[in-house]
Amino acid sequence: MKLTTVKELYKNPEQFLDKEITIGGWIRSIRDSKTFGFIVVNDGSYFQPLQVVYHDSMENFADISKQNVGAALVVTGTLVATPQAKQPFEIQATEVAVEGGSAPDYPLQKKRHTLEYLRTISHLRPRTNTFQAVFRVRSLIAYAIHQFFQERGFVYVHTPLITGSDCEGAGEMFRVTTLDMENLPKNEDGTVDYSKDFFNKETSLTVSGQLNGETYAQAFRSIYTFGPTFRAENSNTTRHAAEFWMIEPEIAFADLEDNMNLAEDMLKYIINYVLEEAPEEMNFFNSFVDKGLLERLKLVASSDFARVTYTEAVEILEKHNDKFEYKVSWGTDLQTEHERYLTEEIYKRPVFVTDYPKEIKAFYMKMNEDNKTVAAVDCLVPGIGEIIGGSQREDDYEKLVARMKELELREEDYQFYLDLRKYGSTRHAGFGLGFERCVMYLTGMSNIRDVIPFPRTVNNCEL
Amino acid sequence: MKLTTVKELYKNPEQFLDKEITIGGWIRSIRDSKTFGFIVVNDGSYFQPLQVVYHDSMENFADISKQNVGAALVVTGTLVATPQAKQPFEIQATEVAVEGGSAPDYPLQKKRHTLEYLRTISHLRPRTNTFQAVFRVRSLIAYAIHQFFQERGFVYVHTPLITGSDCEGAGEMFRVTTLDMENLPKNEDGTVDYSKDFFNKETSLTVSGQLNGETYAQAFRSIYTFGPTFRAENSNTTRHAAEFWMIEPEIAFADLEDNMNLAEDMLKYIINYVLEEAPEEMNFFNSFVDKGLLERLKLVASSDFARVTYTEAVEILEKHNDKFEYKVSWGTDLQTEHERYLTEEIYKRPVFVTDYPKEIKAFYMKMNEDNKTVAAVDCLVPGIGEIIGGSQREDDYEKLVARMKELELREEDYQFYLDLRKYGSTRHAGFGLGFERCVMYLTGMSNIRDVIPFPRTVNNCEL
Repeated sequence: MKLTTVKELYKNPEQFLDKEITIGGWIRSIRDSKTFGFIVVNDGSYFQPLQVVYHDSMENFADISKQNVGAALVVTGTLVATPQAKQPFEIQATEVAVEGGSAPDYPLQKKRHTLEYLRTISHLRPRTNTFQAVFRVRSLIAYAIHQFFQERGFVYVHTPLITGSDCEGAGEMFRVTTLDMENLPKNEDGTVDYSKDFFNKETSLTVSGQLNGETYAQAFRSIYTFGPTFRAENSNTTRHAAEFWMIEPEIAFADLEDNMNLAEDMLKYIINYVLEEAPEEMNFFNSFVDKGLLERLKLVASSDFARVTYTEAVEILEKHNDKFEYKVSWGTDLQTEHERYLTEEIYKRPVFVTDYPKEIKAFYMKMNEDNKTVAAVDCLVPGIGEIIGGSQREDDYEKLVARMKELELREEDYQFYLDLRKYGSTRHAGFGLGFERCVMYLTGMSNIRDVIPFPRTVNNCEL
Repeated sequence: MKLTTVKELYKNPEQFLDKEITIGGWIRSIRDSKTFGFIVVNDGSYFQPLQVVYHDSMENFADISKQNVGAALVVTGTLVATPQAKQPFEIQATEVAVEGGSAPDYPLQKKRHTLEYLRTISHLRPRTNTFQAVFRVRSLIAYAIHQFFQERGFVYVHTPLITGSDCEGAGEMFRVTTLDMENLPKNEDGTVDYSKDFFNKETSLTVSGQLNGETYAQAFRSIYTFGPTFRAENSNTTRHAAEFWMIEPEIAFADLEDNMNLAEDMLKYIINYVLEEAPEEMNFFNSFVDKGLLERLKLVASSDFARVTYTEAVEILEKHNDKFEYKVSWGTDLQTEHERYLTEEIYKRPVFVTDYPKEIKAFYMKMNEDNKTVAAVDCLVPGIGEIIGGSQREDDYEKLVARMKELELREEDYQFYLDLRKYGSTRHAGFGLGFERCVMYLTGMSNIRDVIPFPRTVNNCEL
């Protein structure tokens, strides 16, 4: 069907005013008097709806008037300017065809619903204002990320989801199997015989594409991943989901500073893109979801991010230990309360904290000369705390092997990873951005369940 | 580090000629005489490498000369034009710093390797010409797809990977579980107690995001998914992987013809984008992988796709049954040999085949008025056969329920899907494009294992 979108009308009204157009959309509200009626229609292409005026000159006037909220219509008529009204224009309809009615028990009648209730109808909630805004912005952020990296020549790499390695601790991983659970094949000693499983061994869902990503950075120099990641953590919080998306860029011939520059540029790019492309949605969030949102985002987009070492940050925070539930001292990981204090109270802008104690960071991070800290970096932003975590990677074969021994990691599990340090090793770095964390930050939504179309959390895997 | 990329040099040589630049990359080949040497360096940013000339005036001349293929270098020097040589310019180096050496057992010495061998070193193969080309083009295709849909206002939807439904047959799905396999919790009747599992029920990896995608199309009108999909099929072919990516657009207020127009526009857009953005890679494929590739792709990009019904196609094919291993008759599914004959011999261009017998298509496809065929469509292209499959969806509540009863599907499993037909149903359609199938088609690579960075197939889940 050749339909004009409401977005096109708003973007180029002069092209359509006083002309006949046809649109398709769903009723948000409808009211009629004896001889005419008003219908507010949303077609999903744009945050603003469109008002339709219809008259009893139509044969199906009565049928139209009894339509319910949620019904699908195809409307033909003339777009006319309405300088006295709050909306800029409306359609004077000549024809209103009912594409599909809406049963009287439609759950989204014109009234406010709680986010909790809307979570129970995840297949219908994208029809509400809030979720129209959330999921359009989610889509735009995803695209902004691709655009940012592609414009810079990064190669997009699909790292695998099913993995045979358990590099980050099997306890938090989901097992993937095709074995018959009611009749598991067994080894002679009574344990499960995974050689009968689909991949001829034990497999799980990945918790990170980083190690695979590094192999591609050593070939293409600048790469990024953007794909799903899984954590089987039994934690029922507003910030954790069992299935979420991650972006993990990795850059060769690059150190921690290059990494920070990339992260800073990326965050600013995403924010500017969304402010530009979704002003209606962003204003909606700022008015109804999170009052300080726009101010905060504009501050981030226009600040030079501060940079401080962990050691310096701890010195600063220790002076304010009376304000914290968990007291800060060198060697402890920073909690959200400390992170937010640093970025909101001390720096009043985003801040990179670098060079953390090796004990609280991963084995692959580059050891600093002090042999106590590693070249790790977290990016902290006002309103949320940590949004990005990354590091320069240990690129020295001997040092990496030594560190793995200290941590009792088995060399044979990491042969491919060690090969990168054997054949043309480069200084290189990368970071991870939790995509949902990013969407929450840009929309002001406070529960991760409300920024994922069909969220998966402990005991919850609906639709 | 501030490095110039080889891509920048090739795109804007005049900006860099006779100036000092610094590049970083990996040795592809190296040869030296007593007083000077040549190094061919690839930096991963561009398909063409760059030649570096170095001299014994350098302190580390001897050290450079003993570097092996694969070593990482940082080279500073002047870019000079080489009008007599086959390459347009080279670097006259003033400094060559060895970033990381390459051990003598580096598997990618300068000689030809078989694709089979390269599959055994999936962490290193992206450093070869073939896989530089494949995986850069894969990245560009992915971006072209995003760009195509975003430019048209489609909303990108992340449908879930872990699912509690088994809508397309549990036999081919991977189970996802956190139960202790060595000590499974049991119900009183001895069966496994999945209420103890992470999601409080049985869960698997998705085989399609379509049904979830439809719910978002009924809110945003035009949406697409682009994410991983899984099949636990025990088939060891060159075209099947257990983990692959799919693109599934879904459009509301749209019928089968709109669907075909969208698919045709998308394929042409992708082809043109890749021909434009990766001419060196595409020429490489055309010369060394698949001789007719460019001609075939240009034909597709410039043809109006033919459109024929299944019934007409069968009539045509029956006349040529002597040529086929499997004979064609009405009611049987088309095999690749038939598909290729249609598109390559009969139409000599891409062709959409529509309106298949309902028995060989899915329950959700819209029943035609003949009550024998459904509004399905497959897109066939020369050289491969089917590349896209789609349909208009059944949007009538009663008809959908009746069809589900015929097929003995349980209504309660599809309540959310039926709701879409109850509340503002619209005619709508969509299709699925297997991303790897698309990459194979555009590169001429004939084994799916060679277009996925780390392929997962039966008995194979390495790295």
